[in-house]
Amino acid sequence: MQFLQNNAAFATLIGAIIALVFAGVMAKRVLGFDRGTEKMKKISDSVKAGANAYLKRQYTVVSIFFAVMFAILWVMVAFGKLTAFVPFAFITGGFFSGLSGFVGMKIATAANARTANACQSGLNKGLRVAFSAGSVMGFTVVGLGLLDISVWFILLKYAFKLNASDITSAMLTFGMGASSMALFARVGGGIFTKAADVGADLVGKVEAGIPEDDPRNPAVIADNVGDNVGDVAGMGADLHESYVGSIISAMALGVVAFDGNFRALSVPLLIAACGILCSLIGTFFVRTKEDADQKALLGSLGRGTNLSAVLIALISFPIVWFCLDGKKTIGLYFAILAGLLAGVLIGRATEYFTSDSYKPTRNLAAKSETGSATIIIGGLGLGMLSTALPIVIVAACILIAFFVSGGSVAEPAKGLFGIALSAVGMLSTLGITLATDAYGPVADNAGGIAEMAGLDASVRERTDALDSLGNTTAATGKGFAIGSAALTALALMASYIDKIKSLLPDGDFTFDLMNPKVLVGLFIGTCLPFIFAALTMDSVGKAAQSVVIEVRRQFREIKGLMAGEADPDYAKCVDLCTKASLREMILPTIVAILAPIVTGVILGYQGVVGMLAGATAGGFLMAIFMSNSGGAWDNAKKYIESGVHGGKGSDQHKAAVVGDTVGDPFKDTSGPAINILIKLLSMVSIVFAGVVVSCNWLG
Amino acid sequence: MQFLQNNAAFATLIGAIIALVFAGVMAKRVLGFDRGTEKMKKISDSVKAGANAYLKRQYTVVSIFFAVMFAILWVMVAFGKLTAFVPFAFITGGFFSGLSGFVGMKIATAANARTANACQSGLNKGLRVAFSAGSVMGFTVVGLGLLDISVWFILLKYAFKLNASDITSAMLTFGMGASSMALFARVGGGIFTKAADVGADLVGKVEAGIPEDDPRNPAVIADNVGDNVGDVAGMGADLHESYVGSIISAMALGVVAFDGNFRALSVPLLIAACGILCSLIGTFFVRTKEDADQKALLGSLGRGTNLSAVLIALISFPIVWFCLDGKKTIGLYFAILAGLLAGVLIGRATEYFTSDSYKPTRNLAAKSETGSATIIIGGLGLGMLSTALPIVIVAACILIAFFVSGGSVAEPAKGLFGIALSAVGMLSTLGITLATDAYGPVADNAGGIAEMAGLDASVRERTDALDSLGNTTAATGKGFAIGSAALTALALMASYIDKIKSLLPDGDFTFDLMNPKVLVGLFIGTCLPFIFAALTMDSVGKAAQSVVIEVRRQFREIKGLMAGEADPDYAKCVDLCTKASLREMILPTIVAILAPIVTGVILGYQGVVGMLAGATAGGFLMAIFMSNSGGAWDNAKKYIESGVHGGKGSDQHKAAVVGDTVGDPFKDTSGPAINILIKLLSMVSIVFAGVVVSCNWLG
Repeated sequence: MQFLQNNAAFATLIGAIIALVFAGVMAKRVLGFDRGTEKMKKISDSVKAGANAYLKRQYTVVSIFFAVMFAILWVMVAFGKLTAFVPFAFITGGFFSGLSGFVGMKIATAANARTANACQSGLNKGLRVAFSAGSVMGFTVVGLGLLDISVWFILLKYAFKLNASDITSAMLTFGMGASSMALFARVGGGIFTKAADVGADLVGKVEAGIPEDDPRNPAVIADNVGDNVGDVAGMGADLHESYVGSIISAMALGVVAFDGNFRALSVPLLIAACGILCSLIGTFFVRTKEDADQKALLGSLGRGTNLSAVLIALISFPIVWFCLDGKKTIGLYFAILAGLLAGVLIGRATEYFTSDSYKPTRNLAAKSETGSATIIIGGLGLGMLSTALPIVIVAACILIAFFVSGGSVAEPAKGLFGIALSAVGMLSTLGITLATDAYGPVADNAGGIAEMAGLDASVRERTDALDSLGNTTAATGKGFAIGSAALTALALMASYIDKIKSLLPDGDFTFDLMNPKVLVGLFIGTCLPFIFAALTMDSVGKAAQSVVIEVRRQFREIKGLMAGEADPDYAKCVDLCTKASLREMILPTIVAILAPIVTGVILGYQGVVGMLAGATAGGFLMAIFMSNSGGAWDNAKKYIESGVHGGKGSDQHKAAVVGDTVGDPFKDTSGPAINILIKLLSMVSIVFAGVVVSCNWLG
Repeated sequence: MQFLQNNAAFATLIGAIIALVFAGVMAKRVLGFDRGTEKMKKISDSVKAGANAYLKRQYTVVSIFFAVMFAILWVMVAFGKLTAFVPFAFITGGFFSGLSGFVGMKIATAANARTANACQSGLNKGLRVAFSAGSVMGFTVVGLGLLDISVWFILLKYAFKLNASDITSAMLTFGMGASSMALFARVGGGIFTKAADVGADLVGKVEAGIPEDDPRNPAVIADNVGDNVGDVAGMGADLHESYVGSIISAMALGVVAFDGNFRALSVPLLIAACGILCSLIGTFFVRTKEDADQKALLGSLGRGTNLSAVLIALISFPIVWFCLDGKKTIGLYFAILAGLLAGVLIGRATEYFTSDSYKPTRNLAAKSETGSATIIIGGLGLGMLSTALPIVIVAACILIAFFVSGGSVAEPAKGLFGIALSAVGMLSTLGITLATDAYGPVADNAGGIAEMAGLDASVRERTDALDSLGNTTAATGKGFAIGSAALTALALMASYIDKIKSLLPDGDFTFDLMNPKVLVGLFIGTCLPFIFAALTMDSVGKAAQSVVIEVRRQFREIKGLMAGEADPDYAKCVDLCTKASLREMILPTIVAILAPIVTGVILGYQGVVGMLAGATAGGFLMAIFMSNSGGAWDNAKKYIESGVHGGKGSDQHKAAVVGDTVGDPFKDTSGPAINILIKLLSMVSIVFAGVVVSCNWLG
């Protein structure tokens, strides 16, 4: 154990390599399956081409941003405000985050037709293909994250011989790179996917009355491309950022809590590395019998994730015990457990509020009886109400993690490390939780292909079973993502304060709510998620409107389209979505980067801390509200489609489709993007702390 | 001046009496007008009977609540946790708040037919009746508020010879009484009015395609009753509470800032008393030529309010100068100015985002082209985005008020007094701003009566001109209400801390964001407005659904109803709304009262301060978001009705009606109720501070 601790970074590097090798093996397995008929291949190729084209253009735009930021950071290096590692760390963070999304997208577009084809021979085979594709994504995300962390760590420690505090300080910068990239991916991809989805649904389903994924709908390929660039590539970049952020913030706080030496650093690193092994073992337990029903499928996924969680819970004990001070610091272990448990509980709460197996979503579906206005009001209310449980869970987790770790109001360092570790605990088995999450969009796409290629109805039924399961696992995944975001943001806030302390040793480090700068910062911070949600929703609205107009035009102008005699112009819709989402993703990102700098320059670092606290609290609430409202509307619609309240095509169903359409940007664009926002704000604050300290108006 | 200062309470009493006498004169003038035809009288009588019946039952339910609270407070008195004045102060606060609403409702139901009738002879006469009725309401609210304050003050100071700090402490309790009553009135009335409105619109306008206020609609009388019990009685109780809350919190902080003596108390009292005179003068300038267009009408209202504001701005200078320490403390005057200006600016921002004269609402109307989902997404985004400006305005006001008043982080007392005075400044001319606000529902009702009584179309046009103007003045009024709520809540938070200091002289009075109890309190506080909004929206949804079902039933079962040959059963709908709103108003109120007590018992007073800060920031944002989304949808619909985007009856109009329906509970139930919530939370915290200090789990 001593040996492991001293070489934690190498152990982590090995963990990263294992994850990447496993991802490679899984990818090979996926590619070994057959893609089916010519028609399926053709459709799959169009989706792939659209996704590739989008990502290529997105990465071009993002590169410009990164080049500009690199130059800005470089100027700051020249003025002695930053160390020279920072600009490079920023770039690699962004690169690996983008790569995570790219790999995920590649495998997802490769797996969609294969899953549809596999579903022809049965549910189990379909699950195997889709889940393998999800695993590629899951293990690539964690593998690349740990690779980045361990290589930088080894470089800075052994080649440049920096001390622990300088290392973690430099590493927070690649967190900022990863967050910026994640925000672009989430916002850009989120706008793309929802513009296409909303556009396709509004004209196709509501106005023209043709089914979902009908090949006559000109936006149907764009919709499928959107699943890949938004739900897959966006989510990959997003969770890569969460994962990396939680680990490096825990490392930074560990150094502070344990007097600046390397000892505590090894804990998050080793937990992450072991988490990969536990996830890997878990994946072998995801399999099901051929005649499995939905419950058995869910059970098999649950078996995998639960097993991984139990394993990491067991392994964390010796890690904390031996790496730190045995019994004296074992409280930190319980902080990790609290985090693991909180993640599971938030996921359960999410499921309760958004699954049609429970009362809230069923009641929501019943509101369709009185039209779209009442189902909208109901869904908004449901989402707002659903924030209560997660808030209580996270509040309990914060208090427990802080106090069991030996934190106190006078000496908070260990307590804050505990909070950071609870986030690491929550995300330690990300490899498998992400695999169970990412397979959803693959199954969704497979369904689309089955529909468009005119496969047997039983195939669509199977892909639907997989997809609907994906909605439940996605709910759990969201619980982890949102919960860990709040905890990580708090940890980063503590890191920011440590950073300021190092810059201004004689500053005032009480952040009292009665200090008007803190209070005003709090107001502004709480407002940021609202503005951010507004900007992203507005973007989706604008982009969707252009899709609606285009789809209507094609229905009107292309003769024989509705009769199935002519092909729609799919590429036009893909192109529209691409342009709109790239144009619209710029402003929200700039707001996120400028907000902490402007606040800092005007209100000083005390205002920044207030802002971070407000943004974390407000952002956590908005993210849950928007995700859960969206999820509940989606499932209420599916519930009606299952035959209640008039079933498909009824007025109630139309009302539910309106709800689902409003929910689309809620749950897949704005909500998840807020998760990234709250961490990016902290990262930017940390990196630009030097600027804030040297030029600040109110003193 | 010295004399005035020593006898500020008597000056205030005189101000209160002048206001009430003026209200009486105005009421007499209103009653002097003719009620028109027999049919108009009949309709007006039904509305009046419904409103009376509702309020009677509401006050019965509320009395039970007050009796229970009185008993609880009395027990606390018996255990020595409170002084014996507290339970009585609580009762009188509630009584006067309820009375404000009652008087407003009485005059509004008396004025509706009279306004409709007056509009037969011309716009100016109509304006005079409606505005006189609004003035009755405005001056009753401020008059009763100051009466309560001054009588208690005189009693406690001269009869019981309490010291200044004990007096303000006791007076905060009647703030709690007023807030509780206001919450009941706002939530109960808000649910009633929106359930009726939504129910009437959904079935009448959307499904059956009959116009608004059509006498064939069974919910139309309930809708009109709703305007009176919600928009009038609810608003009266609400603003009475804001007004009283801002004055007593400023008094309490003034005592702390000026070493416990009576000197500073006179400033808010005298400003309030002079504000009444300024408002009174302003009302004489509200008149218009017979051929006035809408712009001229708005100009005439603006003339009155602006003049009042300028007058109070001038008079406040000598008050602050002579009552306090001349040049040394004149900074407090600029805090008052900052408040006045902030109120106006927030109003302007509200107007920009919600009036169809500006781009945001026009763009929103254009979103109706692609259906109800896009207009909903657009409206939600608009509301969220519209929080940015008010946040910046309030933030600037807080910083300016704090620092110009001589506050500093180490010595905040004067700065906090400055913040409280800025709220007093903002509300000082409430007499006239409320008059311009309250006349809107009167005009709305008059329009309904004109429609139902089959008056000439020109009459409806005139009432519509008055009503649409009312929407703009209501926006300004909302700016004052929301802005002052945030500032008052902050002032009350400071009073809470002072209260705890007096109970626990050796406590820890830094409320550091790095203290997990403060932080967790913050999370919970930020969540409260979400839960509160959810509960109230859900109540509206439930109540509206029952109305929808009832209206559909009547359309189906009453033969000849659509042909106009049979009368609908109006009373049934009124009764449904009454029952639903009374049942539904209980839970939100209990949540608001229990939240600070439970938080305090678990997390201690530091958690409570965190909670109050979070609730103020989150509540301010949610209130603006919901009010502005709702306002914009309403006006987007009206804009379409003016003939653009297909005009009345088109698909676009139907989409806009869905938006308006969603906006109804946003702007008239949940949004305004949150304003009260954030102050009630602080008041409850203050009154129950003793309990929190003596039993608190986490120490």
